[in-house]
Amino acid sequence: MRAEIIAVGTELLLGQIVNTNAQYLSQGLAELGIDVYYQTVVGDNADRIRAAIETARGRADLLVFTGGLGPTLDDLTRDVLAAYLGRAIVTHEPTMRKIEELFMGRGTAFVESNRRQAHLVEGATPLRNDTGLAVGNALSVDGTHYLLLPGPPREMKPMFENDGRTWLRGALGEANALHSVMLKFSGIGESMLEDLLIDLIREQNDPTIAPYAKEGEVAIRVSTKAGNAEEAARKLEPTLQEIRSRTKGYLYAEEDIPLEAAVVRLLEQKRMTLTVAESCTGGMIAAALTTVPGSADAFLGGVVSYSNAVKHRQLGVPMELLEGEGAPGAVSPETAAAMAEGARAIADADFSLSATGVAGPAGSEGKPVGLVYVGLAERGKPTRVEKLQLSGDRQGIRIRATKRALHLLWQSLSGQE
Amino acid sequence: MRAEIIAVGTELLLGQIVNTNAQYLSQGLAELGIDVYYQTVVGDNADRIRAAIETARGRADLLVFTGGLGPTLDDLTRDVLAAYLGRAIVTHEPTMRKIEELFMGRGTAFVESNRRQAHLVEGATPLRNDTGLAVGNALSVDGTHYLLLPGPPREMKPMFENDGRTWLRGALGEANALHSVMLKFSGIGESMLEDLLIDLIREQNDPTIAPYAKEGEVAIRVSTKAGNAEEAARKLEPTLQEIRSRTKGYLYAEEDIPLEAAVVRLLEQKRMTLTVAESCTGGMIAAALTTVPGSADAFLGGVVSYSNAVKHRQLGVPMELLEGEGAPGAVSPETAAAMAEGARAIADADFSLSATGVAGPAGSEGKPVGLVYVGLAERGKPTRVEKLQLSGDRQGIRIRATKRALHLLWQSLSGQE
Repeated sequence: MRAEIIAVGTELLLGQIVNTNAQYLSQGLAELGIDVYYQTVVGDNADRIRAAIETARGRADLLVFTGGLGPTLDDLTRDVLAAYLGRAIVTHEPTMRKIEELFMGRGTAFVESNRRQAHLVEGATPLRNDTGLAVGNALSVDGTHYLLLPGPPREMKPMFENDGRTWLRGALGEANALHSVMLKFSGIGESMLEDLLIDLIREQNDPTIAPYAKEGEVAIRVSTKAGNAEEAARKLEPTLQEIRSRTKGYLYAEEDIPLEAAVVRLLEQKRMTLTVAESCTGGMIAAALTTVPGSADAFLGGVVSYSNAVKHRQLGVPMELLEGEGAPGAVSPETAAAMAEGARAIADADFSLSATGVAGPAGSEGKPVGLVYVGLAERGKPTRVEKLQLSGDRQGIRIRATKRALHLLWQSLSGQE
Repeated sequence: MRAEIIAVGTELLLGQIVNTNAQYLSQGLAELGIDVYYQTVVGDNADRIRAAIETARGRADLLVFTGGLGPTLDDLTRDVLAAYLGRAIVTHEPTMRKIEELFMGRGTAFVESNRRQAHLVEGATPLRNDTGLAVGNALSVDGTHYLLLPGPPREMKPMFENDGRTWLRGALGEANALHSVMLKFSGIGESMLEDLLIDLIREQNDPTIAPYAKEGEVAIRVSTKAGNAEEAARKLEPTLQEIRSRTKGYLYAEEDIPLEAAVVRLLEQKRMTLTVAESCTGGMIAAALTTVPGSADAFLGGVVSYSNAVKHRQLGVPMELLEGEGAPGAVSPETAAAMAEGARAIADADFSLSATGVAGPAGSEGKPVGLVYVGLAERGKPTRVEKLQLSGDRQGIRIRATKRALHLLWQSLSGQE
C-alpha cells in the first residue's frame, strides 16, 4: 500500500510550527509495512485542500490527513473531503454528548461551532479522541483509504496508536502486519556501528535492519512481517542474537527508551544511588536523569560547579589542582576525579558522575574546544576518568559529554565494561 | 510571489528525520514577503521528483528545493531538474577546486562521485556553501524561479541567509523586502498576551503582527515592507511603542533570544552573580543558563537537591521544614525560600533561584501534580517565593517552572516587577 501524508494548516506554511506529525506517522506507517511516497502540507483553504486530495489520489491508495478537524470555520478537512466524495456530513452522537457535557460542566456559554468537532463524513468509522474533542474519521471509497486525524500531536498520537492503527490493520489484512524491535546503542557512533554490522545490513532481506541516529545515541530497528507475535519473534531472534553478540558494551536496551532511563532502571533494580558533579555539562546530566519518572529513589541530586570556587567549596576539589602555575586546571583528569569523589562522599551515594571540559565557543585554560573529562566514582572501587575529544557546537559537545558520562555508568552497572 | 518548498530525501519519508528545513524556510520566505502555499516531501526517486516539479510548477512561481545535492547517486535533484528543463549539467570550477584540494589535503583516495557536488544546472547562479561542499543553484526559467539548497540544516541555513536571500531579493525587487522585529515575552500565556493586544491584532494591516508560541515563551513578529531599514524603522516604531507600553514586565527582548540569554546579559552588565538550588527542575535551570556562551562569568553553579538529605546537608534546609508531622514538606514556600537562601549563602552570590514542586506523573506529599514553588533570594533583600499551578506532562511542567524561575529573576534585574 502507498500512502501520502497531508498536513492541513496555515501555521505550518508560515513556519510557526514544525511538522513533527509527518515524522511520527511516517515511522508508524513504516512499522505497518506501508510505504510513504509523499508528504504534503497545505493551508486552510478549501480549493487548495481539494487540489491536494486530487493530486494525492493519483499517486497513493491511503491518504492520511492531520489537522483541520477543530471547531473553527478554518477547520475544513472534513467538509472538503465530504464535498469531494459527494457525501453528506453526519453527526457522531457520542462525541456531541461529550462536547455538550463539557460545556455544561464549565457553565460557560456554548459556542455553536464546537458542534463541528462531532462531524463525520457519511459512512466513516469514528476514531476515539481520548485527549481532545474532535472525532477522527476513517473510510474507504473506491479502493482509496482516508484517515482523518487531529492536528495537535497530543490528540493525534493516541488516536493513531489506538483506533487508527486498528483500522489500518483491518484495511491491510493482519498477515501484512510488521513486527519490529528497536535496539538502542550508546558509546558508539553510527558509522562504527554500521561497520560492525555491515554484512548483516548489506545482506538484509527479512528481517530488515534500519539504522536511526540522534545526537549521542544510535538505534537500529529490526523488522519482519508476520501473522502473529510468536511467528515474528521466531523470525527476528537469530538476527537479534547476532547483533547482540557483536555489540556488547553498547547495546543498552531492546526498546525505545533513552539511556538515562536504562541507567535509572538498573540503579533501582540494584537499590543503588547516584549523585553528579557537573561543570561543562552545567546540569544536563541531572536534567536528563530527572526526566525519568520516579528517578528520585535512585538519583539524590548533585552539584553544578561552574566556577572554581564552587568546585573547591562544595566538592572539596583542592585549589592546588585548579589554579596556580603547573596546576592541572579545572579541565583535567585530576579535577574530574576529585569532583566525582567529592560529590559521592558528600551525598554518601553509591556512584557519582562528573564532567569537566571546554564546550566552547572559545577555548579555556589554553585547552581546545571539545576536550572533556568524564569521571565515575564508585563506593569501594578506584575512580575512573575517560578523556573525550568531542566535535560539534557548544550544545552538541554538552549533549555528547552527558551521554558518554551516562554510558560509563551504564557499562559499570550492567557489567559490560 | 507564490512558493512551494520541496524537500527531497527518502529519510524524511521513513520518518528518520523531521523536516525542520521546511519551517525554517517558510519563516525566511515569509520575512521576504513570499507566500508559501504548499510544502512537499518526495523520496530519492527520479520519476517522483520530476512529478513533484510538474505539480509544483502548476501552482507556484518559486520552487525551493532542499536535499539531493550530495555526492551519491541517490542525490538526484540537480540532474532531474536539468533534464526537466532540457538543460545540460556544467561544472562550477571554484567548487571543484575546493573539493580536489580537500581530498588532496587529507591524503585519502579521491572518490569520483564527489565531483557531483560541483555540478550546476546550465545557466544557474552558484550559491556559496561555507559549511559544506555542494554548491547551491538558483535560476529563473520562463517566469518560474528555482532555488536548490543542500539538505543538512547546517549547510542549508547559511546558504539561504547569504546568497539565497540575496538572489531572492534580486528576483523580487528590493522595494518588496520585508523588515521585521521579533518581540519575546515570558511570564504570560499566548492567549493572555493576545487579549492585551487584541485590538492591534484585529486591526493590523501595515505593520503586520504575527504571534508565535513555544513552551514557556511567546513571541510576536511585527513586520512591514519597506525600501530600506530607516523607512522600516519609521513604519514599525509606533506599533512597537504601543506594544511595549501594554506588555511591561513580560517583554524581555526585541530580538530572537531565549530568556536565559537575556538574564545572563543583564547579570553581566551589572557584574552580578547567580547560583541555583533545584529540586523538581532537576538541573534544567542550570542547563538552560549554561547554554549561553560565556555564562561562566555570571553563573557560579548550584545544587540539584533531589533528595531531602541533599536539601538539608548541602543547602542547609532545616529538617523540621522537610519531614515530620506538621512540617510544610519539601514542596512548600518555606522550603523554596530556604533552598534559595542556602544556595546564595554558600556560593556568596548576588542572586539565587530555587524550584521545588511536583512534576508528576504521581503526586507527592499529598500535593497535586503541577504545584511548584519558585524562590528568588537576593543579597540584602527579602526572599520572594511564587506559587505556580502548572498543567501539562512531567517535562512540560519542568520547562514552565524553569522559565518562570528565570522570569522572576529577569523582572528583578530589569526593574520591571
